[in-house]
Amino acid sequence: MTMNKELKNTFEYIAERVDKQIELFIPKSPEPEGQLYEAMRYSSLAGGKRVRAFLAVMSSALLGVDEALALRAAAAVEIMHTYTLIHDDLPSMDDATLRRGKPALHREFDIATAVLAGDALQSLSFEVMAHEDTHSDPRVRIKLVSGLARAIGPAGAAGGQMIDLIGEEEDMTLGQITRMNRMKTGALIRFACEVGAIMGRASPQYTMALRNYASDIGQAYQMTDDLLDHYGARQDTGKDTKKDAAANKSNFIKHLGPEETRKKVEILINQATQHLSVFGEKDEAKRLKELAIYLLERKK
Amino acid sequence: MTMNKELKNTFEYIAERVDKQIELFIPKSPEPEGQLYEAMRYSSLAGGKRVRAFLAVMSSALLGVDEALALRAAAAVEIMHTYTLIHDDLPSMDDATLRRGKPALHREFDIATAVLAGDALQSLSFEVMAHEDTHSDPRVRIKLVSGLARAIGPAGAAGGQMIDLIGEEEDMTLGQITRMNRMKTGALIRFACEVGAIMGRASPQYTMALRNYASDIGQAYQMTDDLLDHYGARQDTGKDTKKDAAANKSNFIKHLGPEETRKKVEILINQATQHLSVFGEKDEAKRLKELAIYLLERKK
Repeated sequence: MTMNKELKNTFEYIAERVDKQIELFIPKSPEPEGQLYEAMRYSSLAGGKRVRAFLAVMSSALLGVDEALALRAAAAVEIMHTYTLIHDDLPSMDDATLRRGKPALHREFDIATAVLAGDALQSLSFEVMAHEDTHSDPRVRIKLVSGLARAIGPAGAAGGQMIDLIGEEEDMTLGQITRMNRMKTGALIRFACEVGAIMGRASPQYTMALRNYASDIGQAYQMTDDLLDHYGARQDTGKDTKKDAAANKSNFIKHLGPEETRKKVEILINQATQHLSVFGEKDEAKRLKELAIYLLERKK
Repeated sequence: MTMNKELKNTFEYIAERVDKQIELFIPKSPEPEGQLYEAMRYSSLAGGKRVRAFLAVMSSALLGVDEALALRAAAAVEIMHTYTLIHDDLPSMDDATLRRGKPALHREFDIATAVLAGDALQSLSFEVMAHEDTHSDPRVRIKLVSGLARAIGPAGAAGGQMIDLIGEEEDMTLGQITRMNRMKTGALIRFACEVGAIMGRASPQYTMALRNYASDIGQAYQMTDDLLDHYGARQDTGKDTKKDAAANKSNFIKHLGPEETRKKVEILINQATQHLSVFGEKDEAKRLKELAIYLLERKK
């Protein structure tokens, strides 16, 4: 299954604009530190799917947020996501060789540059989010910054990655794996959907609907990642596959087997789309539902 | 020369309170990611001099900021500083074995944990700064976050570290070394002094005075660091010494020689204290002047 035309167009529309934003945020530099900017651009503009940008822009559109503002926040989220990928790929972490179909950053440059580029992307993401051009109301910007910080800090992505590293050595229960994924990848996905709620000053009902949707697709996304790692071919996914089994990693497949995992994904996707019913027949809600269904069927 | 009694007392007073703040921000965790918190605590509570906290708290006191608020911001700055030290010490960077008299974090734990702990400390610093307990006015908090992000991003510490890494291979001019230091260590020191100006909503005159003071002591601080590396003994500084010469690093000593460097430090310190004359005979201004003079004489 491929994306339907509307979803595909929306994805391309957002990815193109987010890439332009990121290019502006990370200019080429003739200064001695130019290599840092090169490295930041290499990974940030590598043609990712921009799922998190899609979530940020669609949730914003759903709540009437100006698109130019949403695109800045979406770019900040993608910049942050790229930082986590660069550090996760490091030899001391997952030791990945490929990312988005290209050599991992530490292979294209070197380890020190990859560490620094990740560090600088984290800082840049906060800088963009805090900038007055992202929203005129400082209360909104500070909420964005706080949410972003929690999503990637020790209670979010960094904590999740720590558990993942330990998990290579120890067996984790299904509950522990779920918690790890909620932290490692789920937190930033949930935050991407909250961007719209924060910027659009959404009612608690709408905020909760987006949060629940994000929570379900976040978990489903990680499960389909595991399935792709299990079934996928390297040329399709653009990264190394079968790495989890090789590392004897505790993941959903190991506990549930691939078929049971797939069934769980279907239940989550079904739930996710139901959460969006509060938004009625709005186009953006449709796109978000289509994304959920696409995640179920994605090949990379 | 040692610190005079008032300065020493003030330093101890601030260090003790900032350490208590940091302990609250990084609790021990019984969760599987507990190792991450342990690592963050190991480096954050290693008894640093807390120069940046001192600058943040003194500049705040000078401008009438509530001490409890200043201490939170000061802790955020020290947490950020600790992150930069952890990553700078990594084997792919400066490959340091000692820090603050203890094994570097990547030696006490492992490289992956050190990368992650640094990452998480960066995020935590922003989280603390953005928190409503740090200042009731979101406009003040967003200014703090923006300033902090610029100080450590590609135009600040991360960019400076990139130049430093390249500088091990290439010769740098004196101008390039000065620029590198302004980015690598100066930016966060300047920001620490700006904390008071931002939180105290200082006049442009006072803001500029603090900025100029910080700029001068920041440069002097780096020069005395180079001098300590040149002359110092490992047991005094609590870190590896003579590393710069061993790595054939371009630093002030290499260009100017130790005596000329020391003379330049004296000029900068003299300038720094003069910038503070706008604050008259206030106690906090005295302490900041004493710090400048102490930097000139410090042994570690």
